[in-house]
Amino acid sequence: MAELLSGAPVAAALREKSLAQAEGIRRQGIIPCLAILCIGDRPDAASYAASLIKNAPKSGAETRWEEWPESISQGEALARILRLNRDPLIHGILLLRPLPPHLDEEALCQAIAPEKDVDCATDLSLAGVFAGKKLGFPPATPRAVMEMLKYYDIPLAGKKAVVLGRSLVVGRPLAMMLMAEDATVTLCHSRTADPAAYTRQADILIAAMGRPEAVGAAWLGKNQVIIDVGIHRKEDGRLCGDVHFAEAEPLAAAITPVPGGVGAVTTALLLLHVVEAAGQ
Amino acid sequence: MAELLSGAPVAAALREKSLAQAEGIRRQGIIPCLAILCIGDRPDAASYAASLIKNAPKSGAETRWEEWPESISQGEALARILRLNRDPLIHGILLLRPLPPHLDEEALCQAIAPEKDVDCATDLSLAGVFAGKKLGFPPATPRAVMEMLKYYDIPLAGKKAVVLGRSLVVGRPLAMMLMAEDATVTLCHSRTADPAAYTRQADILIAAMGRPEAVGAAWLGKNQVIIDVGIHRKEDGRLCGDVHFAEAEPLAAAITPVPGGVGAVTTALLLLHVVEAAGQ
Repeated sequence: MAELLSGAPVAAALREKSLAQAEGIRRQGIIPCLAILCIGDRPDAASYAASLIKNAPKSGAETRWEEWPESISQGEALARILRLNRDPLIHGILLLRPLPPHLDEEALCQAIAPEKDVDCATDLSLAGVFAGKKLGFPPATPRAVMEMLKYYDIPLAGKKAVVLGRSLVVGRPLAMMLMAEDATVTLCHSRTADPAAYTRQADILIAAMGRPEAVGAAWLGKNQVIIDVGIHRKEDGRLCGDVHFAEAEPLAAAITPVPGGVGAVTTALLLLHVVEAAGQ
Repeated sequence: MAELLSGAPVAAALREKSLAQAEGIRRQGIIPCLAILCIGDRPDAASYAASLIKNAPKSGAETRWEEWPESISQGEALARILRLNRDPLIHGILLLRPLPPHLDEEALCQAIAPEKDVDCATDLSLAGVFAGKKLGFPPATPRAVMEMLKYYDIPLAGKKAVVLGRSLVVGRPLAMMLMAEDATVTLCHSRTADPAAYTRQADILIAAMGRPEAVGAAWLGKNQVIIDVGIHRKEDGRLCGDVHFAEAEPLAAAITPVPGGVGAVTTALLLLHVVEAAGQ
């Protein structure tokens, strides 16, 4: 029986930290506030946004919902982001993506002020992750993975970590964060020949390739720590991750459930970033 | 007998490319020029600087040697860098490091204008390497490794690449560049447990840990491609790399010599960046 790495106690600990920090800030008359920008109808991002709005008070933060019309022009969207950059009541800015196709997503992301860039949308924030420096904030999901590993006392130094997926929001920054904790990291991706040969040898395996239940028994060794970053809705309506949980659980030393694993921590972490931004 | 991956023909090809590009630019009355900033006495960097000065004309570029006093203040050094940023006759800026200890190296590096940052001293240039975007220029040494692999037609997609050394000037950016070409990369470092277990399995092995002749027969498999980024002077005065050449050469499919390998390419590449910067 694998240890179940539940996200709930990790999120609770982060919320407690966040709340304590927010209290000090609020005493100075500052209320940490996240602006959530939604351009047009973004059903993919709706549940993430809803979870942020619902959980913000538990972290001592507020949210401001900004719904902009689907037809907004690039110039107007840019002007509004610059206005939020200057708005002293706003401390974090989250732009829900993807954007409508007529907008230049890259240009709008880069326009976010670094000190309000709580989910690492800008190049400068990203450079901080790569260089191991504090510039802006790291992306919430890979930092959530790191917080889980830390909370459950999973040693990283000298360990063999394999990251499946090289996205700029999860895989690549996570590889850098694991390396910063002295793990030896292999970054696998869609063009990797025989990925199972790498994953079977991992001490710590992170699945972040975005393919439902792709990591089954054949990919796994024994007594591994398995962190599942994926979340998908199956045809029968149930949620699942990138890992085939039923096959992996009997083999693993520890494993995150989906739902109830990394996802729960991500929300708490993003809100902690908002509080940290307000305290800067 | 391993194929010898000599840097000379790669450097020659890059110089030819550079020269052709410079000709077009010079016809518009622009002479590509690199400012080399040397603060105080920097014997470590002297041979690199000398090689740049000597080779610049072959690449169609010029150099301007800026020797600033050891005792220069932070404010004065910063002011001079900002002046070079604005100087229309200067297209690239190279700050020789390390700096005298009283100076804030980080702040001076970040002050270099991105479009003149030909050796990736700024966070924004680094973010470009990480994100796979064109922002500033990539660091010259890892790009030199990539140019060598390309020149000698060494396939990377799906291959197992192991990088020894996680520095921000070589190891980390090189890992990202190899991954961008679809290699599966493992980044080893001083805290890696049993590095030889990784290196023996590599298709392509990059030694960039900065330890003379540390990679010997026990670390190697058969028929590997070995790229040696290290350069050290031994007690007997001879130069060597991070790889023990005499032990590695009989095992390898292909190997770079030291000297005469990557180093020669780095100079040509930095000068190409200067010409590219002038043409922007």
